[in-house]
Amino acid sequence: MQSFFEKRLAALDTSQPSIRHLQDLIRHKTPVAIQVMGVGELEGTLHWQDVAYLALSQAEGRPLTLINRAAACTIRALG
Amino acid sequence: MQSFFEKRLAALDTSQPSIRHLQDLIRHKTPVAIQVMGVGELEGTLHWQDVAYLALSQAEGRPLTLINRAAACTIRALG
Amino acid sequence: MQSFFEKRLAALDTSQPSIRHLQDLIRHKTPVAIQVMGVGELEGTLHWQDVAYLALSQAEGRPLTLINRAAACTIRALG
Amino acid sequence: MQSFFEKRLAALDTSQPSIRHLQDLIRHKTPVAIQVMGVGELEGTLHWQDVAYLALSQAEGRPLTLINRAAACTIRALG
Amino acid sequence: MQSFFEKRLAALDTSQPSIRHLQDLIRHKTPVAIQVMGVGELEGTLHWQDVAYLALSQAEGRPLTLINRAAACTIRALG
Amino acid sequence: MQSFFEKRLAALDTSQPSIRHLQDLIRHKTPVAIQVMGVGELEGTLHWQDVAYLALSQAEGRPLTLINRAAACTIRALG
Repeated sequence: MQSFFEKRLAALDTSQPSIRHLQDLIRHKTPVAIQVMGVGELEGTLHWQDVAYLALSQAEGRPLTLINRAAACTIRALG
Repeated sequence: MQSFFEKRLAALDTSQPSIRHLQDLIRHKTPVAIQVMGVGELEGTLHWQDVAYLALSQAEGRPLTLINRAAACTIRALG
Repeated sequence: MQSFFEKRLAALDTSQPSIRHLQDLIRHKTPVAIQVMGVGELEGTLHWQDVAYLALSQAEGRPLTLINRAAACTIRALG
Repeated sequence: MQSFFEKRLAALDTSQPSIRHLQDLIRHKTPVAIQVMGVGELEGTLHWQDVAYLALSQAEGRPLTLINRAAACTIRALG
Repeated sequence: MQSFFEKRLAALDTSQPSIRHLQDLIRHKTPVAIQVMGVGELEGTLHWQDVAYLALSQAEGRPLTLINRAAACTIRALG
Repeated sequence: MQSFFEKRLAALDTSQPSIRHLQDLIRHKTPVAIQVMGVGELEGTLHWQDVAYLALSQAEGRPLTLINRAAACTIRALG
């Protein structure tokens, strides 16, 4: 059996509207509500996104909550 | 270990009937109902779609709700 | 970082028995029942399939319901 | 943006133990119980498998039920 | 449209700690508890793993239960 | 039908913030709470991560619990 070894560095595709939309929410520290499968709605501000997770600050000074993108059913700005 | 770096810019495949169907709903501002896993049915009009999310306007002037495509179980025009 | 841009046009693989089975249900307008995750059982006739969705007509003259293939747990002909 | 068009014909990998295990259940018409997400346990005999679905006969002469492989949580022979 | 035909033989990546961890549980016939989505906790000993399924023996002489890896939420040794 | 055989050795992409965030939690033995689909919240310290699982120690001397990354909805440091 032939084999090859690879390491894929996936980058966020900033040409996608949703990636840019989330970057705006991050940049403006917009309060958001994220509906998470099996958990319910989490509120806070987004600190960063990568290909697998959204990092949510639920309260000043508390550690970030990593939310699995696949489990984040809906994302919306509050207000 | 060999490695390579890549950045994939996935584009919506407009030859797919479902992509075109959704584009029509967007273009005509057709009211839709989307059944979202663990959330229930959301109503509104679609503003855009990309490879990962549908952007739903639930009410005039309210921020868009991003719906994870993987969590959108059914999509139908109302009326 | 190197990058490449690609657009993948996925086609339905008509050599798969399930794709052909669904094409038969479409061609013969066979009434079907589809169990959809978090929604329950939907009945109707299939109008088309693509790589991401099944298009179900639940009643004559009503708009089609797009069913996310990943959320369609079981599909069976009625009768 | 460069683009390329491709059609992938995925084949079942018959070197995988699970594919062979399922082929045995099909060949010997072994009664099976399949736990399907959001549906419960379905019993019958398997007629075929492909990359996306398992085809279950729940009763002689009734149409086959296509079970989405991703929704089939457990599969076991009865008896 | 260009097309190409391919058959991918995915192999278990034995450099991954989790694959080796599961191989150890198999080799030592360690009793395990596996939490399966929508099913609950199944106990037994693992007989093999492949890219898609874990094969669990729930009782001596009973047929193996194939557990969809995607539905196996947690896996732990008992005791 | 042409075919090719391949063995992919996926490596963790340490350029992703979430991978580094989890590596920090592992290195500092930070107590964490992980919300697991269909299971609820598990607490402990992370021992390692790979592309498919997180290894959680729920209590000193007890065997590790492998948590399927796809089923880990949220991950946060405690305190």
